[in-house]
Amino acid sequence: MKAARIYGQKDIRIEDIEIADPKQDQVQIKVKYCGICGSDLHAYLEGWGLPTQPHPLTKRTVPVTLGHEFSGEVVKVGSKVTTLKVGDHVAVEPLIACGKCENCRKGDYNFCNRVQAEDGAGNFLGFSDDGGFAEYANIKEIFAQKMPEGLSYELGALAEPTAVVFEAIKKCGLRAGQDVAIEGAGPIGLLTALLAKSAGANHVFIIDLAQVRLDKAKELGFKHVLSPADGDVVAAVKKICPNGVDVAFEAAGVQPTFDTALKLVKRTGILQIVALFGKPITIDLTNDVIMQGIDIYTTLCYNNSFRQVLGILNNNRELFSQVVTKKISLDNLLEEGIKALSTDKEQVKIMVTPEM
Amino acid sequence: MKAARIYGQKDIRIEDIEIADPKQDQVQIKVKYCGICGSDLHAYLEGWGLPTQPHPLTKRTVPVTLGHEFSGEVVKVGSKVTTLKVGDHVAVEPLIACGKCENCRKGDYNFCNRVQAEDGAGNFLGFSDDGGFAEYANIKEIFAQKMPEGLSYELGALAEPTAVVFEAIKKCGLRAGQDVAIEGAGPIGLLTALLAKSAGANHVFIIDLAQVRLDKAKELGFKHVLSPADGDVVAAVKKICPNGVDVAFEAAGVQPTFDTALKLVKRTGILQIVALFGKPITIDLTNDVIMQGIDIYTTLCYNNSFRQVLGILNNNRELFSQVVTKKISLDNLLEEGIKALSTDKEQVKIMVTPEM
Repeated sequence: MKAARIYGQKDIRIEDIEIADPKQDQVQIKVKYCGICGSDLHAYLEGWGLPTQPHPLTKRTVPVTLGHEFSGEVVKVGSKVTTLKVGDHVAVEPLIACGKCENCRKGDYNFCNRVQAEDGAGNFLGFSDDGGFAEYANIKEIFAQKMPEGLSYELGALAEPTAVVFEAIKKCGLRAGQDVAIEGAGPIGLLTALLAKSAGANHVFIIDLAQVRLDKAKELGFKHVLSPADGDVVAAVKKICPNGVDVAFEAAGVQPTFDTALKLVKRTGILQIVALFGKPITIDLTNDVIMQGIDIYTTLCYNNSFRQVLGILNNNRELFSQVVTKKISLDNLLEEGIKALSTDKEQVKIMVTPEM
Repeated sequence: MKAARIYGQKDIRIEDIEIADPKQDQVQIKVKYCGICGSDLHAYLEGWGLPTQPHPLTKRTVPVTLGHEFSGEVVKVGSKVTTLKVGDHVAVEPLIACGKCENCRKGDYNFCNRVQAEDGAGNFLGFSDDGGFAEYANIKEIFAQKMPEGLSYELGALAEPTAVVFEAIKKCGLRAGQDVAIEGAGPIGLLTALLAKSAGANHVFIIDLAQVRLDKAKELGFKHVLSPADGDVVAAVKKICPNGVDVAFEAAGVQPTFDTALKLVKRTGILQIVALFGKPITIDLTNDVIMQGIDIYTTLCYNNSFRQVLGILNNNRELFSQVVTKKISLDNLLEEGIKALSTDKEQVKIMVTPEM
């Protein structure tokens, strides 16, 4: 079968490889769509997250098949699989976890103690095991979530980045009627805005420096889009919400956006971090956090969220479909996908299919 | 009556002043004991927290009567007071709050929107209104908590610093059987240890550089006391709790202790900040927080906690009494109290009484 294999920094090859039959606890899926994530760009541009020594659980090193935002149709089932059958449509939760440690057992399998961050590898299919930029993939039964009847495979592939954001919404406990601000209008920022809206947020402020991204936010129906280039965004938000917002989402991940996000939150509000930060940041804990009673929450991936996320996508099909701005074939992953995404800010989510 | 008035940095005067009758919603108490807090030292040494312009709610500027950890006997009641009577023993919750804003109304009166941190004044009796280093004080009915029958006034005065710690225990949701580590064995660190123990913590590790403080921790019955001077405390803790502790309490408030506390927490554990930080700190959010699934919680003062705290003190009278290392008269507040506390690390809590 055809697969996009990453060997290291700036080395992705479309190859023809064999795929084994699924193991007892796996299903084999025919991949329909796989989205390109920012972390795929980092893997390509910097070699980020790639296993250069055998991964503690999968024992894999590069090359691996890239891609972790994918959906497909079940074509084979392992002998111990009981909840899925051939023909089922599934969205893939691309995590790697031991299933035995304290964190796995309490449901926090995204923090599996066997795959510590210090291992240096992204603990996902598509990094430390074969992922979704391929014609077929073998997936553990518990990580293949059956999709709602009639939901498109594109939206099934969108479940993974949406789950990242859903986890943050879950963590901060966003309730209907609350006001939110979002720093960053990239794919994660826009998905945050859509999920906040679908969770009943009252005012949704979206902040970015890139006008094309703010335009996309407007296209998606958001009125309160703000650029720091046009003036003081904190003042603009507080004109409408005098005490600040209930929750500010940090979906940009740099010091200035972090600082602004903190200033946007009301006393006793929440700063919910969705982005990863490339560098350490400086915080005046006493004055900006403790004295304000602000809680700073972070999340990593998701757990036990795919069912809810697929439900939300199913209930808001048209809205979320607008996030998919381009569909390309697997053959063109590098040129039309990864390279385009790193330069073209008009792209939100590019979907890759082996069937084109 | 006699009162210790602070006029500014390094200017405390024991004066004879008049006290008005309590207002309709106040009781007047005869002060029995008032503890000296680290923030009283900061007020004296640096002028910290003193109102140099009229406080937004109390309209007060210096001089004010210092002291905010106090208990006393009700001697007069205002005309609208219904829950207290002359002769009642009360512990004082020394907060200043408007009672009308969103935060006050939802019970977060320690984050009253009318007394923002940026006002620059400590929003307490003893800073922005008259406090407890005096013979008498007028206290709002709702902030005078009736003490359990037979609880000593010393322990009543200990309710305030204990409430600071109790709020942190509440916030992190510490449960019986969990393991904790505490950075800093000053008064707040030791009270944290005692409360964690009374909440059923399994292992309690106490870390400090000062041997006299570690000795005090041992006196209080704690076995796992560690000094960074004696070797790697993270390794020492992980020898007993291989994954780290469920909750690390930061009761020291500087970068090195923060960094160590973060390393002591298990994946998906909690770093609970109890101290204030004099300077901004640097955090590698991605690697040390997000990837580890660690929640960093902060608290400021307390709300709706005094009843529970007084109950805990009442149930553990002998244990908590050991925290009081010295009792002095109001006349000697400066020399034997504030100045002694800033040099003598053997002192944990010094109690001041106007009756000696």
